[in-house]
Parts: sequence; structure tokens; C-alpha cells
Amino acid sequence: MLTETHFQKELEELKENLLKMASLVEEAIRDSVQSLVKRDSDLAQKIFAREDGINKMEIMIDDMCLKLLALRQPMAVDLRFITSAMKIITDLERMGDLAVNIAERAISLNQEPQLKPYIDIPRMAEIAQSMVKDVLDAFVNRDSKLARSVCERDDLVDGLNEQVVRELLTYMMSDPKTIPRAVHLLIVARCLERLADHSTNIAEDVIFMVDALVIKHHADEKKEEEEK
Amino acid sequence: MLTETHFQKELEELKENLLKMASLVEEAIRDSVQSLVKRDSDLAQKIFAREDGINKMEIMIDDMCLKLLALRQPMAVDLRFITSAMKIITDLERMGDLAVNIAERAISLNQEPQLKPYIDIPRMAEIAQSMVKDVLDAFVNRDSKLARSVCERDDLVDGLNEQVVRELLTYMMSDPKTIPRAVHLLIVARCLERLADHSTNIAEDVIFMVDALVIKHHADEKKEEEEK
Repeated sequence: MLTETHFQKELEELKENLLKMASLVEEAIRDSVQSLVKRDSDLAQKIFAREDGINKMEIMIDDMCLKLLALRQPMAVDLRFITSAMKIITDLERMGDLAVNIAERAISLNQEPQLKPYIDIPRMAEIAQSMVKDVLDAFVNRDSKLARSVCERDDLVDGLNEQVVRELLTYMMSDPKTIPRAVHLLIVARCLERLADHSTNIAEDVIFMVDALVIKHHADEKKEEEEK
Repeated sequence: MLTETHFQKELEELKENLLKMASLVEEAIRDSVQSLVKRDSDLAQKIFAREDGINKMEIMIDDMCLKLLALRQPMAVDLRFITSAMKIITDLERMGDLAVNIAERAISLNQEPQLKPYIDIPRMAEIAQSMVKDVLDAFVNRDSKLARSVCERDDLVDGLNEQVVRELLTYMMSDPKTIPRAVHLLIVARCLERLADHSTNIAEDVIFMVDALVIKHHADEKKEEEEK
């Protein structure tokens, strides 16, 4: 019993670290887009330092998970929780990289006159932030309902991305001088779309873990059912 | 001793499945770009079916790894191998998605006159294919030298991508009518760059596993050393 309590404490510590890593990613997303919106390249620079913290957390949590697997030899639900955590931190680390990509584009864009008011891009960032926060909450609390709401938000981000692409194509076609800036903004929007995709991937894993149901490839299976 | 032999057989089976999954991804990359180069939208359609196979392999291998962890309770090197395999299949599955993205763009592009001869894009695909093949070989054979050569190839792909972007910007600026097609091609090149990134991420994990060395964040650590 004593050992189990200790193991539960270790799992709690793991959860806290996961939430902490997610909040670093959330801040990185917010600040990367704020550095664009407020034309604040100093803020963009700070994201590079924060990424280092995210990378270190990935290594630390990965190590923690390996130790738990080796020393506690967890079964069933706990085993799945720990291996999922190891996958999630890979996603979070890559989300940190994407925030850095946005910050780099912001620095380039801030050196030139602003092409257009940024409306949809901050909206995408806001949703992407809420997704990473909620999906980690869903994971640590095994809340598949919250995870499903994260998947739903992915469509909103995709829709906004399509809107941004259409608008930027219009800018580019009516004035070729805008093309380099428009391409930077296309990449920013695509990074935000990918940030949302990472959270969606995690959400699908949470649902899988909680419901033992693969909704990931649900559409394909449905198709197969119909073909039978 | 009997059990250990059995465990070794299971590990061999895991390795074979990983290599098989990687070869499906390799084919998907090749065919997605061939469907663009040869303007063959039927070939592009076949990639959607193949992605389904890749997704199923991910679930099957993930399950296999969980069973190995639960029933064999592997230690040290084997433990790291199995948890790495679980991360690698996530990368491979997302690489399958990227090949589908390329195939979708190919179908759109094949409906319009070809913008330009495709030279750098097939070259990028060729390197990306070699990277996924070699990185999985490196993983199953614990060959960190081969993994390092995969990391080096990432720079080639990034260089080609920059070249493609520059060229497409020129097209767009000299003739706005080319913009929609050029944007499709920008996305194709970016998908190939991301395919290479996935292999590089796996390669870094292999090196980490084999050399127990984090080269991933090497640059940052070097910087810290200098600051001391």
C-alpha cells in the first residue's frame, strides 16, 4: 500500500509537469502572435529562450516516464497513461518549434509596413491556445468529453486558415509587391493550423485512452462498414 | 532462457513491422510526387487507400508495444527501444498524412496547365524517401552513424525548399495568374520539408538512444557552456 501511494504521488508529479509544459507552450503561442500583432520583435526574441525551457522539460519528463516504467512496472490504465505522456511531450516540443517559426516570421514582417490588419490570425492563435490548455486538462483528468470539444475546435481553425489563404491570394493577385509579406503570413497561418493539429492528435489519443475507441480512423471504418 | 528467446522473437517481429510500415510510407511519398510529376491523378487516389493501411499498422504496432511492456516488463535498452518505437509510429502515421496532402495538391494541380517543369520537388521527394528508409534501418540496427547521415540530409531538403520558394515567388511576382498554382506547389514543397523533419526527429531519437546523448538541443547547451 505504501508503494502504491508513492506511485500515485509520482503520477501526480508527472501530471503537474505535463500541465506546466503545456502552459509554457500556450504562452509561446500567445507571445509569438502578439509579437506580430503588436509589431514587437523583442517579444519574439523571448520566445527563443522559452523554447529552450520547453525542450528541457521534454527531456526531463521523458526520463521520468522511463523511470516509472522501469521501476514501477505499471499495468493497464497507468501503463497507457505513461506511454501516452511520452507521445504528448513530443507533440508539445514540436509545438514550441512552431511558435518559434511564427516568431521568426514576425521578426521579418515587423521590418516592413504592415500588409493588413491582423484579425483572423490572432483568433486562430486564441483557439490554438485554448486547445493545448484543454487537451492537457482532458488528458490528466481522463475527460474524453473535453477532448472531443478540442477536436471540434480544429474545424474552426481550419476554416479560419482557409479564409486567411483566400484573402492573401486576393492581396497577392491585385498587387505583386505584397507577395513576400503575404507568403510570410500564409506560413504563420499554416503554423497555427499545425498547432491545432497537434492538440487534435493528442485529443484523439485521450479519447482512445479513455474510451478505448479509435475515433482517429473512424471515418475509414465507417466506410468499410458501409461497403460490407 | 526460453522466455528470453521468446522475447527476442517478439522484438524481431516488432522490428519487421516497423520496417514494413516505413516502406509503406516510403512508397506513399514516392507515389504522391509521381502523381504530380506524371500528372497521374489515379495514382494520387491510390495513396488515400494506402494511408488507411499505414493507420492500421500504427494501431497494431502500438498495441504490440503495450503488450510487450505489460507482459515482458523490459529493462534499460529494450525499454527505451519499445518506447521509441511507439513514438516513431506516430511520426510515420503523420508522414502518411503528409503524402496524402501532397496527393490532394497534385489532383488540383493536374487539372490546370503545368506551371513549370518539376525538378527540385522530385529531388526533395527522393531524399525524403531515402531518409525514412535509412532512419528506420538505423533504428532497428542501433546504427547512430546512419542516423547522423539522415540528419545531414535534412539540410539538403531545406536548401531545396528555399530554392523552390524563391523560384515560385519570382513566378508569382511576374505573373499573378500563376499565384494559385504556385501556392499549391509551395505547400507541396513544405510537406516534403516536413517529411524530412519527421525523419530527422526520429534520427535524433536514435542517436539519443544509441549514444545516450541529446544532440537535439546540442546548440543550446553549447551556448550555455560558453556563457558560463
